[in-house]
Amino acid sequence: MTPDEFRQHGHALIDWIADYLDGGVEQYPVGSQVQPGDIRAMLPEHPPAAAEPFDEVLADLDRVVMPGITHWQHPSFFAYFPGNASFPAVLGDLAASGLAVQGMSWVTSPACTEVETMMCDWMQELLGLPETFRSTSARGGGVIQGSASEATLCAILAARWRATEGRVNTDGDTSRLVAYATAQAHSSVEKGLRIAGIGTEQLRIVAHDGNFAMRADELDAMISEDLAAGRMPFWICATRGTTSSMAFDPLPAIGAIARRHHVWLHVDAAMSGIAALAPEFRWVNDGMEAADSYCTNPHKWMGVNFDCDLLYTAHRDALLGALSILPEYLRSQAAEAGAAIDYRDWQIPLGRRFRALKLWFVIRAGGVQDAIGMIRRHVDLTQQFAAWAREDDRFEVVAPHPLNLVCIRLAAGDAATDDLIARANESGRALFTRTVLDGQVACRMSIGGRTTDERHVADAWKLLQGLA
Amino acid sequence: MTPDEFRQHGHALIDWIADYLDGGVEQYPVGSQVQPGDIRAMLPEHPPAAAEPFDEVLADLDRVVMPGITHWQHPSFFAYFPGNASFPAVLGDLAASGLAVQGMSWVTSPACTEVETMMCDWMQELLGLPETFRSTSARGGGVIQGSASEATLCAILAARWRATEGRVNTDGDTSRLVAYATAQAHSSVEKGLRIAGIGTEQLRIVAHDGNFAMRADELDAMISEDLAAGRMPFWICATRGTTSSMAFDPLPAIGAIARRHHVWLHVDAAMSGIAALAPEFRWVNDGMEAADSYCTNPHKWMGVNFDCDLLYTAHRDALLGALSILPEYLRSQAAEAGAAIDYRDWQIPLGRRFRALKLWFVIRAGGVQDAIGMIRRHVDLTQQFAAWAREDDRFEVVAPHPLNLVCIRLAAGDAATDDLIARANESGRALFTRTVLDGQVACRMSIGGRTTDERHVADAWKLLQGLA
Repeated sequence: MTPDEFRQHGHALIDWIADYLDGGVEQYPVGSQVQPGDIRAMLPEHPPAAAEPFDEVLADLDRVVMPGITHWQHPSFFAYFPGNASFPAVLGDLAASGLAVQGMSWVTSPACTEVETMMCDWMQELLGLPETFRSTSARGGGVIQGSASEATLCAILAARWRATEGRVNTDGDTSRLVAYATAQAHSSVEKGLRIAGIGTEQLRIVAHDGNFAMRADELDAMISEDLAAGRMPFWICATRGTTSSMAFDPLPAIGAIARRHHVWLHVDAAMSGIAALAPEFRWVNDGMEAADSYCTNPHKWMGVNFDCDLLYTAHRDALLGALSILPEYLRSQAAEAGAAIDYRDWQIPLGRRFRALKLWFVIRAGGVQDAIGMIRRHVDLTQQFAAWAREDDRFEVVAPHPLNLVCIRLAAGDAATDDLIARANESGRALFTRTVLDGQVACRMSIGGRTTDERHVADAWKLLQGLA
Repeated sequence: MTPDEFRQHGHALIDWIADYLDGGVEQYPVGSQVQPGDIRAMLPEHPPAAAEPFDEVLADLDRVVMPGITHWQHPSFFAYFPGNASFPAVLGDLAASGLAVQGMSWVTSPACTEVETMMCDWMQELLGLPETFRSTSARGGGVIQGSASEATLCAILAARWRATEGRVNTDGDTSRLVAYATAQAHSSVEKGLRIAGIGTEQLRIVAHDGNFAMRADELDAMISEDLAAGRMPFWICATRGTTSSMAFDPLPAIGAIARRHHVWLHVDAAMSGIAALAPEFRWVNDGMEAADSYCTNPHKWMGVNFDCDLLYTAHRDALLGALSILPEYLRSQAAEAGAAIDYRDWQIPLGRRFRALKLWFVIRAGGVQDAIGMIRRHVDLTQQFAAWAREDDRFEVVAPHPLNLVCIRLAAGDAATDDLIARANESGRALFTRTVLDGQVACRMSIGGRTTDERHVADAWKLLQGLA
């Protein structure tokens, strides 16, 4: 492809994306309607022997790809969690693709590191997070991760390093370590522990209350029991906004317990932490000063397209202790003088994209007010939807819904609720996720689309009522 | 930003990238010349309170970002490893950003999964890899990872699962496990093992020969010794193209040993495996039929911008056993019927971008012939450069250089070589990496730029000669 052809096809693709995000997406069923194998069947089984005209490649986005897309950008997408792409974010990502630098070390592109550090500091300020998370603090700092799963794993590794005073790096001994979370914690908690050599037998499932939030008294009792048995409690995951029902574990009480027993406290606010941009929702950070690490996802509720997770720690020594490796070909004077951050030592992989650009573009283009306005709209719509559900005797609201997720079920029971979700999703008019809360099937409605407004939520309610 | 503003700024950014990649990059020093803190000092310490005109944001790419870029796309970039972005790849990434789907499960966007599976199968064919790696085989398959580090970690976890018959997931017991690699293996090997709870005391450093390749006889002896001592050899990493000097561990011999002792054999071909696209370099795969897992990076030598690493395994049951977690909100009928792949169970994170698009675009736009032509040119240029170095008595070529990496040093010794590298890099005319091979400092010259031609390599040689 010549540079001129790139300009031509690039402009066409920009226009295609503009059309798609500016209403075009609403012409599609929300959830893809294909069956397994349908998309593959449209692709040649063997690679082309010669170059193909690029017009045909772009045309295949519509012909082959679009039928197999579940439209996360659809305003009637209420499944999983928000996954917004905003226009400035798409451009930030595009700039990163064009520059194609590797930000593994400061020296491999200082701007990639320093813009990222500043964006983490800007976000610390915008979210009202503790000063101990700021890169300019004595021992803390932030980093952009690809996903909250990776952030959680990094937090586990930092805690594992601290609890063993670094010995785990050489002896690999995790046998005494014990971790704590509720059954409502994200699946990446169990997965991260397992990866780190901490088996599920070493994960204590702390009981939750009627609101699906951790019972701090149960946590305290479990830790005491483990200590008495000679085990080493090393990591607590408190979730601020669980995936199933957006429950909030009581951070002040948990933090006090973590401090008293000197156990690493990780706060997973992947889905809901961005709410703190709005002053009235900053309570999501209550008790955060006791957190040793914290993560939240601009790629969920802030219009920054995947991947952009923020991980903060108040103890960068532990993170670096767990993750630093320094072969000769990665040494640099700037890093050895302590003047520069090498983010490869803050993450699982070595390589990394210039992900800070999209966050920078979004904050500057929208001045954060765009994100705050969107968050407020989503919360209002969620409360409206919950009110409608509560007025209809056939439906029950099964968990608190302080922000933008509400879980409902049919009073008629699990089978009816399952059937309702399946038929609603098959309609293509909206998309919901099924979950199970304390044994009961529920329909999760996550209201977080960049272009979702009252019309879409009202349509979704009509759809559910009609099918009920 | 309105859709029309997005079109306007998007077209401008496409043109900016075209200018940059079409010669513009050559106007910059290859390595960034800034000092730590310089870029941060150009950014406001606090985020903007209101939206800023986007023209100013884009202008800051030139004003703030470019001084802090080390230009991986510069044709005189000879450092680290190739990290090419080609025009079709940038467009594939852009399409992925615009669609912004989450490919964690088949059902969350079937096209994201099925195009990826097909691209892995196309690449298996194009690279001449074993049929047992193909998704249509009985027990194998491929997946796109973010980096070879993650691929290596996944391979370790799959091997750990197989060796413990899955028990590690529940008891976390890694105490008897032992792994094997040479000192030339990538740092991600030690890091991945450490993450997996296998300390450096459990990593055996197998001796290498004068060409920096693993000594299979030493491997065999070490495994026998560990078995006799009641330990459990579980993972061998053979590198086909080491980072320091591009050494090739003898795969047929290692494979026979791995089979005999039933130890998982992972082949790390991150940097050099793509050479197999060209029939005359397919020897890089010799002995691959014994590999249990394998990875290589289209994001290094194929013009697909980061991130795009291919991980293949002949035992997907072990990979899935190690990495599957199934909470209620991720269940789907398609996956439970076994008809669909859920790639979240093939990787560390849960979330994932639609990375297959850029690989698809590159293969179709260039018909692979572009990549083969580039690889051949790089190998020819490397042999030319090595010949020049050999003709000059002041220089020594310190390792074999069968492909596109050559390591040289000054006969005058380590200090002189260190000084040469530092001054060459400071010149901004080229960029090299320093390494240490068996205690001796060497200058690595990796020839892999998409637009690198004889002129740039000759200039680099003149630069080094002038400074010597």
